[in-house]
Amino acid sequence: MGTEEPTATQEPQEAGGAPSKKALKKAAKEAEKAAKKEASQASRQPQENANEPDVSEGLYGERPLNQSQDKSVRKVEKVTDLGVSYATQTVWIRARLHTSRAKGKQCFVVLRQGRSTIQGIVAVGEKTSKQMLKFVTNVPKESIVDVRGLVQTVPKPIESCTQSDVELICLEFWVISLAEPRLPLQIDDAARAVTEEGDEDALSIRVNQDTRLDNRILDLRTPTNQAIYRIEAGVCKLFREALERKNFVEIHTPKIISAASEGGANVFTVSYFKTSAYLAQSPQLYKQMAIASDFEKVYTIGSVFRAEDSNTHRHLTEFVGLDLEMAFDTHYHEVVDTIAATFTEIFRGLRDLYAEEISTVNKQYPASPFTFLDPPLRLEFPQAIAMLREAGVEVGDEDDLSTPNEKLLGRLVKAKYDTDFFILDKYPLVVRPFYTMPDPSNSKYSNSYDMFMRGEEILSGAQRIHDPKLLSERAKHHGVDLEKIKSYIDAFKYGCPPHAGGGIGLERVTMLYLGLDNIRKTSMFPRDPKRLTP
Amino acid sequence: MGTEEPTATQEPQEAGGAPSKKALKKAAKEAEKAAKKEASQASRQPQENANEPDVSEGLYGERPLNQSQDKSVRKVEKVTDLGVSYATQTVWIRARLHTSRAKGKQCFVVLRQGRSTIQGIVAVGEKTSKQMLKFVTNVPKESIVDVRGLVQTVPKPIESCTQSDVELICLEFWVISLAEPRLPLQIDDAARAVTEEGDEDALSIRVNQDTRLDNRILDLRTPTNQAIYRIEAGVCKLFREALERKNFVEIHTPKIISAASEGGANVFTVSYFKTSAYLAQSPQLYKQMAIASDFEKVYTIGSVFRAEDSNTHRHLTEFVGLDLEMAFDTHYHEVVDTIAATFTEIFRGLRDLYAEEISTVNKQYPASPFTFLDPPLRLEFPQAIAMLREAGVEVGDEDDLSTPNEKLLGRLVKAKYDTDFFILDKYPLVVRPFYTMPDPSNSKYSNSYDMFMRGEEILSGAQRIHDPKLLSERAKHHGVDLEKIKSYIDAFKYGCPPHAGGGIGLERVTMLYLGLDNIRKTSMFPRDPKRLTP
Repeated sequence: MGTEEPTATQEPQEAGGAPSKKALKKAAKEAEKAAKKEASQASRQPQENANEPDVSEGLYGERPLNQSQDKSVRKVEKVTDLGVSYATQTVWIRARLHTSRAKGKQCFVVLRQGRSTIQGIVAVGEKTSKQMLKFVTNVPKESIVDVRGLVQTVPKPIESCTQSDVELICLEFWVISLAEPRLPLQIDDAARAVTEEGDEDALSIRVNQDTRLDNRILDLRTPTNQAIYRIEAGVCKLFREALERKNFVEIHTPKIISAASEGGANVFTVSYFKTSAYLAQSPQLYKQMAIASDFEKVYTIGSVFRAEDSNTHRHLTEFVGLDLEMAFDTHYHEVVDTIAATFTEIFRGLRDLYAEEISTVNKQYPASPFTFLDPPLRLEFPQAIAMLREAGVEVGDEDDLSTPNEKLLGRLVKAKYDTDFFILDKYPLVVRPFYTMPDPSNSKYSNSYDMFMRGEEILSGAQRIHDPKLLSERAKHHGVDLEKIKSYIDAFKYGCPPHAGGGIGLERVTMLYLGLDNIRKTSMFPRDPKRLTP
Repeated sequence: MGTEEPTATQEPQEAGGAPSKKALKKAAKEAEKAAKKEASQASRQPQENANEPDVSEGLYGERPLNQSQDKSVRKVEKVTDLGVSYATQTVWIRARLHTSRAKGKQCFVVLRQGRSTIQGIVAVGEKTSKQMLKFVTNVPKESIVDVRGLVQTVPKPIESCTQSDVELICLEFWVISLAEPRLPLQIDDAARAVTEEGDEDALSIRVNQDTRLDNRILDLRTPTNQAIYRIEAGVCKLFREALERKNFVEIHTPKIISAASEGGANVFTVSYFKTSAYLAQSPQLYKQMAIASDFEKVYTIGSVFRAEDSNTHRHLTEFVGLDLEMAFDTHYHEVVDTIAATFTEIFRGLRDLYAEEISTVNKQYPASPFTFLDPPLRLEFPQAIAMLREAGVEVGDEDDLSTPNEKLLGRLVKAKYDTDFFILDKYPLVVRPFYTMPDPSNSKYSNSYDMFMRGEEILSGAQRIHDPKLLSERAKHHGVDLEKIKSYIDAFKYGCPPHAGGGIGLERVTMLYLGLDNIRKTSMFPRDPKRLTP
């Protein structure tokens, strides 16, 4: 870059606009040409115009590839910290060039770091040469740059930047890592808000899900995605903290298993040396073995695999399970209460500690705040059936809930109790797996429960049968081959305390807490029947 | 159980002894008979001897299967808390029957809960019938029992129990979950100390590794295993806490991937609907993509798969990786220092917070305490070569370290610097993967490092090449097919900050910190080329 006459290689970028194809092509061509030129030079310093001394020499250019040549320590500020308290100070920042727009003898840039942005200005003057201006103008968007700048308050807030009270007068401008000039998607397009009412914005460019996922490293740079994955990390952290306060022990369970954990359907097969094996659909057997081994209360966070050919908004073939299992003294509600309290701590923690991140997500994807009761609402299955019938749904006493009925129930519960979270206890025995403990007083029901967020199931759990004899009976009754589950049954032969547990889908919790419409928005690198990359 | 004459169905058990086969057989037969009898009775209460009224009626027996019939809350004490401060109090505990030994009109039992044990006594008297004594005597070891007892100080310490100052006069004795009378291994045998000098104990029964692993739910009940997996959970917790204090973000990376991450060797294949896929050998690409997506500092804890047919003390086909990746400002030593400080926090945390657990493990497997320096020792590769040569080893400047040389180096470092942990920096470029950043001043070396505990590698890491052009060059130089790693290279096309990272094997860290001899001791359900169960 550098020797040609300044030209608007990049069209001016308004917050809502995308560069024209022609402009992109031109920019790409020039940048390629420039890059070639640069590569052929021993020094990476920008070329000077032979006729004109460059007063900015040594203040801009492309830095050589960082191979850790230099160990000097410098103070670098975070963009998010820059505000009026920094006014008149000179600071270094490292950020992405989000946008740049040349305007006569000035170039306005927006510098982005995570969810934060600040406006920078390069203006030709005593210390700033035309060459420097041209260089800055030609840096491709998304390049990483080191900028030294003077922080200056602004007369009126810069609405388009998160740091709206200040701007940065750029004194030095160095490219650290150059982006290709042609981007497969524009960050601003990927970050554009979804408007709920009508579609005033119908003409603006949207980025569809596949384009996003195909170019995930760009898509993940949007403020929303920067926030979502911090919130998701928060769910894990709050889950662990809640359980560790209750003396749960973290365990790790194998993902490669010798027999399909739940009967053999929907399981991925792995070649294992000279034999074959399966990918675990759940850590349940291993959690239960840990209970039978006296660990009392255990949890595990890990990958769970489902070979279901379901192409829906809420199914993934690989997801993260937050699983727990707990021995109890007299009643499985000790465990239900523990799980319920864990959710309350997660919801409260997200609300209180991640308010900024949640608000960032809501700006792009508006949603009503997540409501919850403390302690959470617990309904019994017959109550749910009654509510559905009252709403005109025909449903049998022992029918499982269909997905539409779950959603309707969620709306009915929300209307009646004002909560987006509730526990549905005492499912009909017939709709639950063989290892579910039957209800002691009514053999039609069982000691099992699902938990719901915004009308979608996010946890399934139960008191498990800890007696090998009853377990065998129930398995036979379900037509399960006893030989295939022998090791499971044997785990209870040497004494096992009564216990219950459950498994939570991390991506679902994050999606539903935020009111998002697709689970691919909360899986950093989602896997579904049609997607194995990136 | 119940109606026959009292017989010594279980041989007296000394701490070191195992029951004779004959006694076990007899006990098993009787217990089976008794169990059958019981099962045929509507009431599970023990049978009374028709001729003799039972003064203990309602104070012992087998409880019906817990189906959560009862929601009453009772106070239950932890065995580990019972001491002189409880003397003269009556308490409930739930524990396993570790051993029982009838002696005339008394029965001594040891009750075990996790790593804690307490002695209990059932003595025929005013409130305790002969029938109750017989019942208790016949309960199979490892059954779970609820005991109400009077805590009583003892004249001299009971050396065989962790609660050595008190014993429990059993007032009620209820079986909650019955163990089969024939155990495939005895907990005391599995818990027996390994003696370093000679083998005085050569005649006592040892439990070999395969028997342990085949019966893992019993093996995991030993005090040592109860401690090991709490320590392992501690490693994860300390790792996370150290990184979260430094603003790392936890991420989750897919385990099912479309292309083999490190060239295709040693990778497990998965059937994926109509195509096939692989199990990730490392989360590295995904960590790096998170860096290229502006997450700055990320970590992930998850399963890692290696299809290596290695049957050694330190290889597993599936293990838990503690991985981190971090963008840096000027020099990759910023990352090395971060990892080093993380290890220091882990080592210090284990030493200070898990001293009891470590001491439990050391009782069975003696080992010298783990030593470390703060800050950790960092050597450069040429220094290590010099030390090895000084010790008489012939080794070339750019040779990789063999496993024996690593071990020797560990001993030399320990002798010279008194540390079991050190960092070896600046590996020869030729022995590292193609994505490793070359050293800027000497092209023979690279910005890469391994970290060692007791002379075994537990972390491998490097500054990664973040420039797509150099990355392609290096890949070509290594003979890597560029087409196959296109998506990896493309991840760096849109700007990426300089970064470095590393991956830690959780089971290795736990094994080596504790000075254990086999990685199967620190994997709850290990997977190796020959083991897929339980």
